[in-house]
Amino acid sequence: MKKLKIVTIGGGSSYTPELMEGFIKRYKELPLTEIWLVDIEEGREKLEIVGAMAKRMWKASGYPCEVHLTLDRREALKDADFVTTQFRVGLLDARIKDERIPLSHGIIGQETNGAGGMFKAFRTVPVILDIINDMKELCPNAWLINFTNPSGMITEAAIKYGGWSKTVGLCNVPIRYIMMASEALDIPIEDLNFKFAGLNHFHWHRVWDKNGIERTSEVIEAVYNPSSTKKLKGMENIKDIPMLYEQIKDLGILPCSYHRYYYITDDMLKNELKEFEKGETRAENVKRIEAELFELYKDPNLNYKPEQLTKRGGTYYSDAACEIINSIYNNKQTQMVVSTQNNGTISDLPYDSIVEVSAVITSNGPVPLNWGKFDSAPRALLQLMKGMEETVIKAAVTGDYNKALHAFIVNPLVPSGQIAKQLLDEMLIAHKKHLPQFADKIAELEKELTQ
Amino acid sequence: MKKLKIVTIGGGSSYTPELMEGFIKRYKELPLTEIWLVDIEEGREKLEIVGAMAKRMWKASGYPCEVHLTLDRREALKDADFVTTQFRVGLLDARIKDERIPLSHGIIGQETNGAGGMFKAFRTVPVILDIINDMKELCPNAWLINFTNPSGMITEAAIKYGGWSKTVGLCNVPIRYIMMASEALDIPIEDLNFKFAGLNHFHWHRVWDKNGIERTSEVIEAVYNPSSTKKLKGMENIKDIPMLYEQIKDLGILPCSYHRYYYITDDMLKNELKEFEKGETRAENVKRIEAELFELYKDPNLNYKPEQLTKRGGTYYSDAACEIINSIYNNKQTQMVVSTQNNGTISDLPYDSIVEVSAVITSNGPVPLNWGKFDSAPRALLQLMKGMEETVIKAAVTGDYNKALHAFIVNPLVPSGQIAKQLLDEMLIAHKKHLPQFADKIAELEKELTQ
Amino acid sequence: MKKLKIVTIGGGSSYTPELMEGFIKRYKELPLTEIWLVDIEEGREKLEIVGAMAKRMWKASGYPCEVHLTLDRREALKDADFVTTQFRVGLLDARIKDERIPLSHGIIGQETNGAGGMFKAFRTVPVILDIINDMKELCPNAWLINFTNPSGMITEAAIKYGGWSKTVGLCNVPIRYIMMASEALDIPIEDLNFKFAGLNHFHWHRVWDKNGIERTSEVIEAVYNPSSTKKLKGMENIKDIPMLYEQIKDLGILPCSYHRYYYITDDMLKNELKEFEKGETRAENVKRIEAELFELYKDPNLNYKPEQLTKRGGTYYSDAACEIINSIYNNKQTQMVVSTQNNGTISDLPYDSIVEVSAVITSNGPVPLNWGKFDSAPRALLQLMKGMEETVIKAAVTGDYNKALHAFIVNPLVPSGQIAKQLLDEMLIAHKKHLPQFADKIAELEKELTQ
Amino acid sequence: MKKLKIVTIGGGSSYTPELMEGFIKRYKELPLTEIWLVDIEEGREKLEIVGAMAKRMWKASGYPCEVHLTLDRREALKDADFVTTQFRVGLLDARIKDERIPLSHGIIGQETNGAGGMFKAFRTVPVILDIINDMKELCPNAWLINFTNPSGMITEAAIKYGGWSKTVGLCNVPIRYIMMASEALDIPIEDLNFKFAGLNHFHWHRVWDKNGIERTSEVIEAVYNPSSTKKLKGMENIKDIPMLYEQIKDLGILPCSYHRYYYITDDMLKNELKEFEKGETRAENVKRIEAELFELYKDPNLNYKPEQLTKRGGTYYSDAACEIINSIYNNKQTQMVVSTQNNGTISDLPYDSIVEVSAVITSNGPVPLNWGKFDSAPRALLQLMKGMEETVIKAAVTGDYNKALHAFIVNPLVPSGQIAKQLLDEMLIAHKKHLPQFADKIAELEKELTQ
Repeated sequence: MKKLKIVTIGGGSSYTPELMEGFIKRYKELPLTEIWLVDIEEGREKLEIVGAMAKRMWKASGYPCEVHLTLDRREALKDADFVTTQFRVGLLDARIKDERIPLSHGIIGQETNGAGGMFKAFRTVPVILDIINDMKELCPNAWLINFTNPSGMITEAAIKYGGWSKTVGLCNVPIRYIMMASEALDIPIEDLNFKFAGLNHFHWHRVWDKNGIERTSEVIEAVYNPSSTKKLKGMENIKDIPMLYEQIKDLGILPCSYHRYYYITDDMLKNELKEFEKGETRAENVKRIEAELFELYKDPNLNYKPEQLTKRGGTYYSDAACEIINSIYNNKQTQMVVSTQNNGTISDLPYDSIVEVSAVITSNGPVPLNWGKFDSAPRALLQLMKGMEETVIKAAVTGDYNKALHAFIVNPLVPSGQIAKQLLDEMLIAHKKHLPQFADKIAELEKELTQ
Repeated sequence: MKKLKIVTIGGGSSYTPELMEGFIKRYKELPLTEIWLVDIEEGREKLEIVGAMAKRMWKASGYPCEVHLTLDRREALKDADFVTTQFRVGLLDARIKDERIPLSHGIIGQETNGAGGMFKAFRTVPVILDIINDMKELCPNAWLINFTNPSGMITEAAIKYGGWSKTVGLCNVPIRYIMMASEALDIPIEDLNFKFAGLNHFHWHRVWDKNGIERTSEVIEAVYNPSSTKKLKGMENIKDIPMLYEQIKDLGILPCSYHRYYYITDDMLKNELKEFEKGETRAENVKRIEAELFELYKDPNLNYKPEQLTKRGGTYYSDAACEIINSIYNNKQTQMVVSTQNNGTISDLPYDSIVEVSAVITSNGPVPLNWGKFDSAPRALLQLMKGMEETVIKAAVTGDYNKALHAFIVNPLVPSGQIAKQLLDEMLIAHKKHLPQFADKIAELEKELTQ
Repeated sequence: MKKLKIVTIGGGSSYTPELMEGFIKRYKELPLTEIWLVDIEEGREKLEIVGAMAKRMWKASGYPCEVHLTLDRREALKDADFVTTQFRVGLLDARIKDERIPLSHGIIGQETNGAGGMFKAFRTVPVILDIINDMKELCPNAWLINFTNPSGMITEAAIKYGGWSKTVGLCNVPIRYIMMASEALDIPIEDLNFKFAGLNHFHWHRVWDKNGIERTSEVIEAVYNPSSTKKLKGMENIKDIPMLYEQIKDLGILPCSYHRYYYITDDMLKNELKEFEKGETRAENVKRIEAELFELYKDPNLNYKPEQLTKRGGTYYSDAACEIINSIYNNKQTQMVVSTQNNGTISDLPYDSIVEVSAVITSNGPVPLNWGKFDSAPRALLQLMKGMEETVIKAAVTGDYNKALHAFIVNPLVPSGQIAKQLLDEMLIAHKKHLPQFADKIAELEKELTQ
Repeated sequence: MKKLKIVTIGGGSSYTPELMEGFIKRYKELPLTEIWLVDIEEGREKLEIVGAMAKRMWKASGYPCEVHLTLDRREALKDADFVTTQFRVGLLDARIKDERIPLSHGIIGQETNGAGGMFKAFRTVPVILDIINDMKELCPNAWLINFTNPSGMITEAAIKYGGWSKTVGLCNVPIRYIMMASEALDIPIEDLNFKFAGLNHFHWHRVWDKNGIERTSEVIEAVYNPSSTKKLKGMENIKDIPMLYEQIKDLGILPCSYHRYYYITDDMLKNELKEFEKGETRAENVKRIEAELFELYKDPNLNYKPEQLTKRGGTYYSDAACEIINSIYNNKQTQMVVSTQNNGTISDLPYDSIVEVSAVITSNGPVPLNWGKFDSAPRALLQLMKGMEETVIKAAVTGDYNKALHAFIVNPLVPSGQIAKQLLDEMLIAHKKHLPQFADKIAELEKELTQ
């Protein structure tokens, strides 16, 4: 039997059962021989719980795939075919800080956007570059399938700064929007054509039916017209506050859930502040859900993905990961939405940027479907976000404080001025443990504080 | 004597004496034969006051230039060589609304940025296109020198939608920054080289000395380092709140005064809210100053530009206008900073955009000095602003309400969401008289209000 | 039964039986109800012969599709779903002139490249624009599938100057190269991935196997290494003179047959001059083959595509046409190589250029697979050819003689200088009948001649 | 007195007296303290002759500038302020080969274009990179003023591969065309505005008068209309064969002398073949002229530039060099045409390409005047030439034979095919001594020859 080894970094994640389910479901096409779940010392307990559950799931499947649990990343990476990353530096407590510290200043701090997202990048970029260093030595032909957030920036760091061109970034948002268009039009997914383009958590899409007729504006009506009777839901993890119908009509293409942070910032902020006051930010809720999930996972009789995982928000994430591995392995030519190098796919962005676009997934990786130019209004924000992302990544790689501040100033979810600097400083100190590249500056800030 | 006819639309402006002074000072190079000051019925009184003063100034100069005052624009435009525009649709009362309505919602409403700037564009674009229609018929070879704000957007509308390629946009901000660098380095202006690039009220610059050494970072130290002992002032009309030293160091090039609205938005907003409460917004101050100025202008013995005009904020504006006319007329090859077509000068912006850049001013118009690419952080905001400007101009030309709303959503000084729509609607109604292109929508809004 | 009407302009072509075979083969997926074969008066006899044969073929198939023959294009176009173009303005005699006149000056005159190709464009562009004018009125939703050569330039004229965005250009060359790679690697086509990019008759490609390994250099070895033992054939209609192994190795990607005209111009010219002397240019051979084919077609018992058609050179052409219609009609997502609008697919060419690239064929038309940038050497010739094509199309549309001469100077197969002008003039006079747009200039040239 | 040291590499050139004259003429603005004329052992005699003459010229001037002659380049470079390069690797005998070998195959072999130009680049690029290595160590702040041909490619190698951004390439062709336009229009140069853009020996220009009226088409009429009565001469060193009036009218902008090689290749080739047969190629003529010049230079009484130097072809070359040094040193803001980095000046070429464009010469180097896009026909050849240049430079830097062959195939003056390879091989062997980077391949070729 031909070896087919997959390594999952952050294997102790609550998502792991979904990933296992996805692999088991595809076993006949994708006959895995080894799965290595890797985690760090702090995640040992979770790894053991979820790892035991993963073993039960495979056992129940009857397929001969070995599940290994380890804290030794290098041992795991040896000769891997695919490496998936779903780790979270600093665990959910870091996410809680990413959300609560900004909100304490009256600022949105979502974990992939705004101050929170930038700090998640600051913490994660050094780790992904470290993983790549190991991969260069231990599994030089492996594909890196990243779903650690902020997925676009992490993928850009991996390709541009790590030099690992065989990286694909994944997200579960596009799948949700494919489903939504199908519901809005009452047409099965397989009878619709989609084209997505933009950045991770910041993409737009268009829809056509099988007669070649563009149906985008009908979906806009169904989803955004206040008088629409359709009940269509976006992502579980983003509050379903309505966007502005008139603006979306002018846009003429379909935004994603995360556009709410930019298109109705003020409305989102008001809602988040309410949640903040109640101690019910998304991060806190996720922590509660996770605790419940791990309680469930402990059940030695549970050998299938429990329903409650859906509430966790990552639905379809693992499915996307399994499907892309399947498509690469079997050269399936599936069309998926992935983060990959631009190379001119979106004319408005730099050639070497990472973009999130529809692509044909082949054995030689994703081949993007050309998109071209955006109209001025979406282009304005798209280019802003890419310039911000580039600045964040450079700050994350170099530990340059001034650049980090500049990224804060440019990020449209952080009000610029003294408050941006205060927020940055406070977050640097709060996340100190996971920001070795900023160590000197943090020491300096702490010294100033004590004076 | 060869005819040389200049027409100034908005001739009743308080700036006119400065313009006259500039022409008188340059008369030997630029022997004007006729100046036509044009205004509209609402500005008749001002035109008469300032026109009389202009006549006194020319009389005192001893030069044989005729000054004509008229409310008939077409009569004035006939065979003009240069047309300068300094009109303000809706006069200062409109500006007061541009500032106070947004501030009443806790939002910055500066007249060239944010909601105010967008509304000034909505009011002005139809008028400039109208003027161009007249010019096509009456003075097809004239140069249009625009200093009506928002100067960049008006120039873009004139060139792209009016098709008048012989348009140059002007602003007094760059001159102030040339002076500031000279003061910061203690080197005379003529021993410094500058390169500016960006958009109107949103440009950056670099400085070199006569030995070819770049001195930009020294200017940054002198102006932005909190421990600098230099006292350097930006524009009169923008509150001198300090920008963030660390960010500007990362930027590595010099911003302009108006960058405050984007780099320290929160600090600027707090200050403006204070002025708003005291009834001391910039617009209100300007209205007071103007009233004083017109009192002065009424003095039948005053035949020179009074000192008080400096406080008005437009210092050097008219000087720039006179100098560019002089440079075109005499093919002087002066280097000036102007709004002109990009054509690749700034690689990060569309080819047909209007940009504000250093240019050599020749008899065949401004020839931009190549700039190239910006670094990611300034590029992010620059591209955002240009995409926003394009959207504003399209909305101004078409009267498309959805597009206007989209421009509001994209503008970084307007918080997006329901509040943006409320603000837009309120301002549409408030400026109703000067927004014929939005008439139907405004009627609809008013109807909704009364229901 | 749902109407599905296809119109073939140039229906009297010898290719028609292949087209019929292709449609019959696909009938179950693509249930045609009407085929209209359209030709002009000069082609009446051929149309009747091949039309009768087409009817016999459909009769033999047992499928209920009606075949109509007509000289009335407008009658045919009414409510068409797909229009295919395979007409030849001036018939094969024009092609003989395209080849022989240049060769009489010692210059290559191939019908899609060099002087011949430019003249074929001059003759064809006005006709395609005329067809589109009819389509706008008679079948505004139809797709135009062009395989009239020079296919890329005709497609560009149709889209850019005719404004018919639903145009796809087709060619049989890519299919031949897909087969060749399969033979070279001894791997079935379905286990290989391809990416093509360039212009019609001027494209390159890369190949990967189902394990994601790029195999392009192995194909280069098999095809171009003089010591290769593989016997691999390119297009039937281009003399198989070897290209330079060392150059192709540097190129690193696979060229197409027509690259011979540019990569080994001198060798091709020598060979063509030999054929010219023997009266055996490609055009003359084709004329002989066609005469034989039409003799065969006259046989009232022949109701299938005869083997001899293969020698004609257009093998797979009609297959490509049927397949693309099938893919659009059934939203099959087939990957094909087509001429379509660039929109950034190839970064080195203008956004609005027509390029020939791999695309996913959907119900909403071809969606190109992103290619990006070429290396300097292929880019050099690619950009040259596109600039030449644009100039040719402009000359064809306007009838501007100076521009036609400029196109001749820029075309790398025409030696520049006096000889280019002589050749141009001689060909203008020779093709006079089919160049209404150049009528005045031709009259002038004739007058000069008689003086 | 402040040190101002200029080093001239290839100091034994016959041009040196002109350079001295230029410096002497400008001494009051540009008070040189030391001039170092550097040459190699093979050039010792010439260096001594021309060096003695240079000393006599300075003595006669009365200015206190020391002239040093040396074969030790490193000694000379120490602390230089400006380094000018006018060396010729392989001396005129190499140029004779560059011209005669191609012509012996019936191919143009001009020293800056075609096979000759490519070989001059192959010989020169390694030397310029070597000089830069010395400069990094010995004079890290010096400007490198290159007039060694092919000036554009050498400048591109110096900047891209040597990393010496303070390089400016110079040529005397633009000055000749400025004069020609002045003669054609009968307007003094100072009353005309010019804009040049393109590549070295491949640029176009436009002209305006002091009233801002474009006069380009009048110059076209005067120079290219066969019925023009003006007698206007291009470069001394290029045969004045007329270009095609109709094509130039379509072009609408003014070409340079060297465009003849591309616009009337066939006519130029015929002429060169005649000269070749008579042993009167340009190189041979230059060798004769140089021998005469050096005879003159030996005259111990000659202390001024002799008239005969004009025939040499490089007129204005040294003048350009002196003027650019003067402009940089004195921050004169002169407008000159130089080879410098594109950075978007010409939209049709890569950002990092070297282009030849009008620029303002400042103390911080040349600042290009924006040009933008070309029309399709000039763009076609411009992009071809740049792609060819890039390929040549890569071959020159790496010694990659396959790439050198590819460059030959792409170069429009070399017929592609077997003949290109034969020519390349023959020239590699002929220039063996000066092509260390190709040593292995040359040895292989020689071995094949002897077998």
